[in-house]
Amino acid sequence: MNAEIIAAGSELLTPQRVDTNSLHLTAELNALGVEVVRKTIVGDDRDRLAESVRAAVSHSDIVILTGGLGPTEDDVTREAVARALGRELVFRQELLDAIMARFARMGRQMAEINRRQAFLIDGGEALPNPNGTAPGQWIEHDGRVVMLLPGPPREMKPMFANECLPRLMRRLPPLVIRTRVYRVAMMPESDLDQAISPVYTRYSNPVTTVLADIGDIQVHLRSRAQSAEEAERLIDELGSQIEQVLGDRIYTREGETLEAVVGAALLRRGETLSVVESCTGGMLGERITSVPGSSHWFAGGFLTYTDAMKTALTGVDPELLRRHGAVSAEAAEAMALGCRERTGAAWSLSVTGVAGPGGGAPETPPGTVYIGLAGAEGCEVKRIFAPGDRQRTRRMATQAALDLLRRRLMR
Amino acid sequence: MNAEIIAAGSELLTPQRVDTNSLHLTAELNALGVEVVRKTIVGDDRDRLAESVRAAVSHSDIVILTGGLGPTEDDVTREAVARALGRELVFRQELLDAIMARFARMGRQMAEINRRQAFLIDGGEALPNPNGTAPGQWIEHDGRVVMLLPGPPREMKPMFANECLPRLMRRLPPLVIRTRVYRVAMMPESDLDQAISPVYTRYSNPVTTVLADIGDIQVHLRSRAQSAEEAERLIDELGSQIEQVLGDRIYTREGETLEAVVGAALLRRGETLSVVESCTGGMLGERITSVPGSSHWFAGGFLTYTDAMKTALTGVDPELLRRHGAVSAEAAEAMALGCRERTGAAWSLSVTGVAGPGGGAPETPPGTVYIGLAGAEGCEVKRIFAPGDRQRTRRMATQAALDLLRRRLMR
Repeated sequence: MNAEIIAAGSELLTPQRVDTNSLHLTAELNALGVEVVRKTIVGDDRDRLAESVRAAVSHSDIVILTGGLGPTEDDVTREAVARALGRELVFRQELLDAIMARFARMGRQMAEINRRQAFLIDGGEALPNPNGTAPGQWIEHDGRVVMLLPGPPREMKPMFANECLPRLMRRLPPLVIRTRVYRVAMMPESDLDQAISPVYTRYSNPVTTVLADIGDIQVHLRSRAQSAEEAERLIDELGSQIEQVLGDRIYTREGETLEAVVGAALLRRGETLSVVESCTGGMLGERITSVPGSSHWFAGGFLTYTDAMKTALTGVDPELLRRHGAVSAEAAEAMALGCRERTGAAWSLSVTGVAGPGGGAPETPPGTVYIGLAGAEGCEVKRIFAPGDRQRTRRMATQAALDLLRRRLMR
Repeated sequence: MNAEIIAAGSELLTPQRVDTNSLHLTAELNALGVEVVRKTIVGDDRDRLAESVRAAVSHSDIVILTGGLGPTEDDVTREAVARALGRELVFRQELLDAIMARFARMGRQMAEINRRQAFLIDGGEALPNPNGTAPGQWIEHDGRVVMLLPGPPREMKPMFANECLPRLMRRLPPLVIRTRVYRVAMMPESDLDQAISPVYTRYSNPVTTVLADIGDIQVHLRSRAQSAEEAERLIDELGSQIEQVLGDRIYTREGETLEAVVGAALLRRGETLSVVESCTGGMLGERITSVPGSSHWFAGGFLTYTDAMKTALTGVDPELLRRHGAVSAEAAEAMALGCRERTGAAWSLSVTGVAGPGGGAPETPPGTVYIGLAGAEGCEVKRIFAPGDRQRTRRMATQAALDLLRRRLMR
């Protein structure tokens, strides 16, 4: 089974706008085992839209249109689809009644132009829209299905979930989906793919998708089967091989963020964390406190953006900074130890580096970062080198810091 | 003049992937005065791709294809376009020589399948690709233009800029574009639109686009004219009216971020800033230090996520916290004053609030945030209420803090 998605509306053809509806629908369709083979975005133009619908209906089992169901002249989806299917638009009093009732509930008078929304493609079925005025439409045509859905995501998503999904599932073979999301920190994408592609390319079910972000890679597995047992067996079979290859570089198999995994480990141990940040300027603290409930394990810390602040706030010896520089293993260690002492937390992480684009020295070019981790048994320091743009270096630094702590907590 | 963009490649039809090439091309085309009227993403399917090309060429002046120029069976763009235009694919020895030379430079042997990349659509012109193996193609057909560009952005963008833009500009009337980007903090989108839409809707040139983010709105103006003087006059005419309506709520007319504007103002005055953050946990410091060169005006500060840390790090009286709570005007003031004293900065900003989803009290529900600003002449405090999700509340809090300082520096 395959599908095409057509989004109508000139506003979707600007340089800033992304058609997010089609991403949502693609995920929903993929989960049913339906492949999306074409996506089209068309401006408010009857001819082009009708042409796109005709092409879609001639090749694909499922055609979903979003947008263009409003009351104005610009909203041409109903007419264009009717024309492409060679059907009439018919006025339906019960649809008009529902639209008028909605206006009445909101204490407003319905404008005359809203009558346009009470026209149904002949032979189609109206799909109720509790979140807006335009009803959707479901049309079966030569063994294909055509759906007309509203454009606003807050109307489209519930209508698809409540009206279209149940109808689609009755037409599709029963299918159980299982997913697993591994995440790996601080591993180059090419290294990871080289390590696991000999394993996952042997399977077309589960489907494997590798998504790389800065210092963080997600490996999505999705299995499909006729029973839950079989879907789980498939995902376990491939998953256990991937786990064997990647080992403790995997920090979760449920897709949580690294900061959430670290937080959960600290909570289990009843321990707290504090941070002292130079080049990241607060990004590490921000990530940690983005996790709801982080006040149970995060105490606070220091932003020491200048040498003077490193000394004043965390007691780093100015002589040490003169001798080794603020971007050094010695500074990272002194910062972490000073932070732990002054906050009384069980663990303290320090970050000091050159985020660029300027600054640095021959031994510490932009992208050089030292991470310190102080605990009851002393301090360990790690150096990373992540050149590139400023945000990339900073993001990698926070990722390296959280992963250093995670590995320490796992020991 | 209008254009269609067609992206080829099944990998673009997954739930996670957005076709960013078309956004870039849309911006470039709009700047030339060319409207994009349809965008299509097609999987690796010769028939569907040829059908989409045929439809595009029948209606639009400019058709741009991206992707599908690689050496494998999956790469069907050359064949599909040739078929849609009714032309042959012809082998070109000079293209093969260029591809082989590229492999030789990289010290690799060319695989036999790369020969496929040496085929040109009859009557077309090859566009050199210094960043990859696949050459692009430029074809003129019945008064239309069809371009075949590679899929990877780092190959596509320079090829469009260096090869296609000059050729397009020779075909288009001369046009000068001027843009202006106003940014406004802490104003609800509907209020802003109500205030300025009576002004900007009277103009179709400049085109006005309003983009809303959390606590931050961008108003883009873009004028087009045959001379620079006229384009500037148009943008000044509309711009001055918008400035009159919005007044000092506009923090820039050049599109910089609020943190960059605040940083530039501090740099001019030779003053420094420190911060103390509770609910934002580092987000304010992170934003400030995202600006290159921020070490010239940012000293550092404190993350005081617990009451104990507010007292230990910034000297807030525990009795004050007991009496008024950590989310109070009194706490925000004491934090800002303590931070300023301990860092010696000219200005200190404090943030304390309930980011949610849990926590809070009847007088301080989730979304309540107090901002303190301490300077030489004392401390002012502002309360904001920004319920919603955790990240939204935190983002609004940092926006409110930076805007409070901006307004103070403008006085």
